[in-house]
Amino acid sequence: AHPVYAGMGLTIFEYMSGLCRDGSRVNLGQGFPDDFGPAELRDAAARALSERSSQYPPMAGVPELREGVAAFYGRTQGLPLAAENVIVTSGATEALTAAILALVSAGDEVLLFAPSYDLYAPMVRRAGGVPVFVPLRPPHWRYLREEIEARITPRTRALILNDPLNPTGSVASEAELAMLAEICLSRDLVAICDEVWEAVRFDGKVHRSLLAFPGMESRTVKIGSAGKLFGLTGWKIGWMVAAPALAAVLGRAHQFLTFTTMPATQYAVAEGLAVADLMAARLAGWAATRDHLNGLLAEAGFAALPGPATWFTCIDLAASGIALDDATFSERAVREALVATIPISAFLEQGERTAIVRLCHCKDMVTLSEGVSRLEEFR
Amino acid sequence: AHPVYAGMGLTIFEYMSGLCRDGSRVNLGQGFPDDFGPAELRDAAARALSERSSQYPPMAGVPELREGVAAFYGRTQGLPLAAENVIVTSGATEALTAAILALVSAGDEVLLFAPSYDLYAPMVRRAGGVPVFVPLRPPHWRYLREEIEARITPRTRALILNDPLNPTGSVASEAELAMLAEICLSRDLVAICDEVWEAVRFDGKVHRSLLAFPGMESRTVKIGSAGKLFGLTGWKIGWMVAAPALAAVLGRAHQFLTFTTMPATQYAVAEGLAVADLMAARLAGWAATRDHLNGLLAEAGFAALPGPATWFTCIDLAASGIALDDATFSERAVREALVATIPISAFLEQGERTAIVRLCHCKDMVTLSEGVSRLEEFR
Ligand SMILES: CSCCC(=O)C(=O)O
Ligand SMILES: CSCCC(=O)C(=O)O
Repeated sequence: AHPVYAGMGLTIFEYMSGLCRDGSRVNLGQGFPDDFGPAELRDAAARALSERSSQYPPMAGVPELREGVAAFYGRTQGLPLAAENVIVTSGATEALTAAILALVSAGDEVLLFAPSYDLYAPMVRRAGGVPVFVPLRPPHWRYLREEIEARITPRTRALILNDPLNPTGSVASEAELAMLAEICLSRDLVAICDEVWEAVRFDGKVHRSLLAFPGMESRTVKIGSAGKLFGLTGWKIGWMVAAPALAAVLGRAHQFLTFTTMPATQYAVAEGLAVADLMAARLAGWAATRDHLNGLLAEAGFAALPGPATWFTCIDLAASGIALDDATFSERAVREALVATIPISAFLEQGERTAIVRLCHCKDMVTLSEGVSRLEEFR
Repeated sequence: AHPVYAGMGLTIFEYMSGLCRDGSRVNLGQGFPDDFGPAELRDAAARALSERSSQYPPMAGVPELREGVAAFYGRTQGLPLAAENVIVTSGATEALTAAILALVSAGDEVLLFAPSYDLYAPMVRRAGGVPVFVPLRPPHWRYLREEIEARITPRTRALILNDPLNPTGSVASEAELAMLAEICLSRDLVAICDEVWEAVRFDGKVHRSLLAFPGMESRTVKIGSAGKLFGLTGWKIGWMVAAPALAAVLGRAHQFLTFTTMPATQYAVAEGLAVADLMAARLAGWAATRDHLNGLLAEAGFAALPGPATWFTCIDLAASGIALDDATFSERAVREALVATIPISAFLEQGERTAIVRLCHCKDMVTLSEGVSRLEEFR
C-alpha cells in the first residue's frame, strides 16, 4: 500500500460511532444529528427519485443546485456568484480531496492550522505536498501573523482554512481574515476554505469567506456542505465554489473521484436552499440543544470553552478538575461511562495529548442529559 | 493546477451528454438507461430516507449492503466472501480511484489495456505511477501473453483489468484470465479488476473474476457497481471487494475520498441484490433493446462488431463503407445528425483515431430507431 495509507488508522469519528452502533452507548462523538432531518427535504428527494432522475446527472451538478448554491451565497453572504462557479461533489470530504489533488503538486508546502480536520494532512501528503502546521492556542484559537509568516517558504503554495473551526467552534475575526487574505495575495498562495460550518453559528453574525476579499476571487476554493446546512449528514452533497477557470480545473479532479453525485438529493437540496425558513428552523433547534448541553455541563461542573459556531462544545478537563489527558479521558469515557466523545488530540498531527475534549450537541435532549449525567458520574 | 488536470478535457461522456441535455439530440453516447430504473428499488430508497437513516452510515458501508454484496457474489459467482471483504463506495469511479491511490506509489508502473476507460491513466499518473499500455486489437480484443510480458519491468506493480470490456463489450476467456492470474502471481502484481459489467452479459455465461483464481485472493481488488447491475447510474453505489487486510487499506483511501456513501440507497441496493428476479428482468429488457439496436444496424447496413456483454454495440465504420475516422464521425454525427455516439479513440491514450464507434443500446426502442435512422440518413 502507499505509505500514506499503510500506517493510517480508522478516523476517530468512525471509531467512536462504531462503538456506539449496537445501542449500548451515548454518542456525543461524531458530528451528526440523531434525527432524520427536515421532512420537506426527504419528501423532495423521495419524489425526485421517480419524477426527476435516477440516472447520471451533469458532471458538475444539476443546474438547479449549481444555481441554487450561487443564489444562496448571494442572498446570505453577498457573494456575486453564478452556476459556473459551483461544482457539486459527493460531500465536502470529496470537495476537499478534489481541491487538494487539483492544486497541490510534488514538493508544494501547504499551511494547515492545528487543530485541523484529520483529512487535510494525509491528503496533502498523498497529493505529493508537505503539510506545515501553524498552531492555534486555546482558549481563543487566534490566527497569528508572526506564526504564519515564520512558516512560509518559497515552496509554500496553499493554505487550508477551516472557518468556523471544527473542533473548537471558534470563528476567525474580520481582522484575521483580512490578514490571511493579505498573506495569500503577497505570497501568492491559494486558499482552500473549508466553510462547512458557515451557517451553523449562534451569534447571529453573517459568515465571511476569504472569497469575499478583494483579489481573492481567483485564488480561493470555498467548500460547503448541505449535510451541515440541513443536518442531513448521510446525504453527502457538498460543493466547491471558485472562479470559473479554477472551478473548471476542480471539476476535472471531481470527474475522476466520483464523476457525478446522486441527482435526487441534489434536486432536494436545491429546493431546500431556496426556503430560508427551513434552515432557520434547523438552526433554532440546534441553538436549543446547544443551550441544553452547555447548561448541563455547567451544572455538572465541567468547564466549557466558548465558541459561537459548529455542532460542538469543548470542555477543558484540567479546568474541570479532571487529571486525565484528552485521549485517555475519551477512551475511558467510551469504555467505562459508555459515552463517546472526541479528544482534540485527534486533530493534531502527532496526536499530541491535550486537556480538551469535544462533545456534539445536535442530539436529542434526553440523549444529551443522559450523556452528561454519565460523564458526571464517571469523572 | 497539478499537471494531470491542467491539460485535461471534459470526459467524452459528459461532453456528449451535455450536448443532448436540451432535448435536441438522440443520446446513444454515455452508458445509462433512459428510464427511471426499477420501481421496487426507488420505493425502497424513498422509504429508507425516512425509516432507516439520513445520517452518516458506517464508513465501510451499512452491514446489510456489505453482507448483501458478499452473498450476491457467493450465489452468482461462487466466491466465498463475507461482509469484511466489502467496502462500499460512492460509485465505481470512487472505488477505482481509491484502489489506485491506495496501491500505486511513485514510480510504480501499471499495466493498462488499450482501449481502456478514460479514468485509469490520469489517476495512475496522479498517484505517482506510470501507465504502460498493452494493446488489444479488433475485432476480438484478445489478451496476448507476449504483448503483456514484453512490457513488464522490475517496476511493474499492478494491472487494471476491465472485464467485460467497455467499450467493446468483449469478455476475456477462461484461458486469458488464467494467463493473467499466472502473470500476477509470477511477477508479484496486484490486479485492480473493474468488473462493473459482470452481470450485463447476454451469452448466459457466469462471470469469472480474477479474484476466483488460486493465489489471487490476496492480490485482487474486485470493483462492482449497483448502477450497472440495476440500471440506476445516478445512484452512485459501488464497492471494492478484497481480502480483509487489503480491504482495510482500501477503506483508508475511501475514508478521505467520500468518507461514507448515502445510507438510503445502500439499503435499497441491499434489498435489490437479494431479489434475483429484479436483475433478471432488467437484463431481459436490455437483451431486447440490444437485439433491436443490432437489428436496426444490420438493416441500415452498419457493420456491427460482436460482443457478448455491456450496454454497448460497436460499429466498424470502414466495414460499413464510411470513410471517416471515429472522432470525426462522432463529432459530425452529434452536430449534423444530432445523434451522440462515443468514438473508440476516447479510450486510447493519445486519442489515436480508429474506425470504431460505440453506441449505447439500453435506451427506449423508439429512441434507438430514431437514432439509427438519423445515422443512416447521415452516413
Ligand atoms: C466525516 S466525519 C465527521 C465530521 C464531523 O462532523 C465531525 O467532526 O464529527
Ligand atoms: C461515468 S461515465 C459513463 C461510463 C459509462 O457508462 C460509459 O462508458 O458511457
